Amino acid sequence: MNLIRCTENPVIRAEDVAPSRPDFRVLGAFNAGVAQIGEDIILLLRVAEAPVSDCADEVLIPRLDEANSAVIVERYDKNDPSYDFSDSRFVVRDGRVVMLTSLSHLRVARSKDGIYFDIEPQPVLFPEQALEAWGIEDPRVTQIGDMYYITYSSVSARGVGVGLAETRDFRTFVRRGLMLAPENKDVMIFPEKINGKFYALHRPVPKSFGAPEMWIAESPDLMHWGNHRFLMGLSEEGWDSARMGGGAVPIRSDRGWLVLYHGADSKHRYCMGAALLDLENPAKVIARSRVPVLEPEAAYEVNGFFGKVVFSCGAILLDQTIRMYYGAADEVMALVDIPLEEIYRTLL
Amino acid sequence: MNLIRCTENPVIRAEDVAPSRPDFRVLGAFNAGVAQIGEDIILLLRVAEAPVSDCADEVLIPRLDEANSAVIVERYDKNDPSYDFSDSRFVVRDGRVVMLTSLSHLRVARSKDGIYFDIEPQPVLFPEQALEAWGIEDPRVTQIGDMYYITYSSVSARGVGVGLAETRDFRTFVRRGLMLAPENKDVMIFPEKINGKFYALHRPVPKSFGAPEMWIAESPDLMHWGNHRFLMGLSEEGWDSARMGGGAVPIRSDRGWLVLYHGADSKHRYCMGAALLDLENPAKVIARSRVPVLEPEAAYEVNGFFGKVVFSCGAILLDQTIRMYYGAADEVMALVDIPLEEIYRTLL
Repeated sequence: MNLIRCTENPVIRAEDVAPSRPDFRVLGAFNAGVAQIGEDIILLLRVAEAPVSDCADEVLIPRLDEANSAVIVERYDKNDPSYDFSDSRFVVRDGRVVMLTSLSHLRVARSKDGIYFDIEPQPVLFPEQALEAWGIEDPRVTQIGDMYYITYSSVSARGVGVGLAETRDFRTFVRRGLMLAPENKDVMIFPEKINGKFYALHRPVPKSFGAPEMWIAESPDLMHWGNHRFLMGLSEEGWDSARMGGGAVPIRSDRGWLVLYHGADSKHRYCMGAALLDLENPAKVIARSRVPVLEPEAAYEVNGFFGKVVFSCGAILLDQTIRMYYGAADEVMALVDIPLEEIYRTLL
Repeated sequence: MNLIRCTENPVIRAEDVAPSRPDFRVLGAFNAGVAQIGEDIILLLRVAEAPVSDCADEVLIPRLDEANSAVIVERYDKNDPSYDFSDSRFVVRDGRVVMLTSLSHLRVARSKDGIYFDIEPQPVLFPEQALEAWGIEDPRVTQIGDMYYITYSSVSARGVGVGLAETRDFRTFVRRGLMLAPENKDVMIFPEKINGKFYALHRPVPKSFGAPEMWIAESPDLMHWGNHRFLMGLSEEGWDSARMGGGAVPIRSDRGWLVLYHGADSKHRYCMGAALLDLENPAKVIARSRVPVLEPEAAYEVNGFFGKVVFSCGAILLDQTIRMYYGAADEVMALVDIPLEEIYRTLL
């Protein structure tokens, strides 16, 4: 694959980000939405934090206390047999996930050259509602006119739903409620109306049967969504055979809507691939990658908080090259330049 | 509980319904939506059918063949070790449900007195789209003006989503696409706009965490839905501690929107209870049943295709009495008259 990883990768690391409060540490700054505003490139970072602990026998759980609209830290004894603490990402009780060990919020980073970023010291979207009590994750940003629409995972004990927020300047944000109910994530709104309607890709996770696959929906107003249709499913084997979902916001190209999507295999190795959707009817898949466009190979992609992961939430078209920003190993941000022709060569 | 089961119960039995084709038999006619049109009471029945088999060693699977838009029957050897046929309702492979053993469609039954019904010989909504390949189930009917809106479970290998259809006469129906993506069911649209918006109750089933609980959503047009909010959750123990979902279409009462909902315990015993929602803000729960309104006690409720189930999809207000229609044991239709005062007495 003829692609060029930025020599400055990772362009943002966990230690570059100030924690939101002194008793927290930053585990990762990754899976950022991407926007262009004026001369600036914006990364809307997912910042995952955990409480600092000085005791190896305790597990500290950060979460929003809904009653008081404040983030609190609860202490659990690691030896308590009623809980399973073996996965560092979450706590299990009676076979169900009952807590997360980290809490994510969204943070703005700005750059003039798209490589060196100034990271703001404070969050811009922080958990403050009951359905965000376990965090705000994995934003995608779509510019329509002078408004930027942000879709994000709204995580709570009720499941993972899809929140919608909007901003004109990445300083003031307005929440518009949950646009899709649990369990759903990986939502990207198309950057223009198509035949009079807005469209979005989404990725429901049904419980009884069905798989984590890609769907498409329509809206008259970006707030209310319907006419849900199945778009694209898992492959029989290979890099996108276990789960998949949209990645970067779709980019208009001369061959169709270019969708950079993620896929994982049964070993939780996450790669990025591409699909082309019909420009006039985005529910129609023209082609998709038979091999990944980007695989975890660099050290910062293979090793980290959750290794062997490349996961993009946004990309920019620079002439005939895609500049794809992506989270690596659920910990850092990186970028890669990929000629469009190289992406097209992966397509079936 | 001072309630009166109809002495003619079950008012519709499986054997009252003609199969849709000669090689099928009717397993059940149950979980019917309810409507009033002119002088008639309409039951929009869920009719579950299975292929007739004369061989004990084979399992026959009915499903829509998407490529040819026709229902086909596939034969499996009951001794094939790659499948688990132990549950009579579905087939499991590698721990996942991969087929259903029955296929449901919707059928109209009409009555002048609400007790004796004429059942039409042919389906009115039959699986014909890819996302209905495993059947159409559990309709609810909401009348708004002279239009009847039908929400139903659209079942396929992709999961259980929520289909929307409309009719003016219960003779001609128009599908309007999937209004909610998988996994979701038990959707009832409120019968009038509230402060300028349509509302619906729904019941997502998240996979990673969260439970089968009741949510509420808004719409400008009945087709597109948003501002999803959590409404009401499982109780700690008791009749609605394992799963729950809306039942009958909400009925305006002087105390609030009356919602008859189903709950089940960990032993899969399904009861009906009630909740009151604020008339001006239906996202606000005023009260809910601490004990069931109706429990499976009669023989036709306790014994049947799937026993110990009462499950309502529609009810009518007759002066100060609720006439609730309900599926019993996933096999037959029954009705019960319950004074409003008796329902109010169950409320917390």
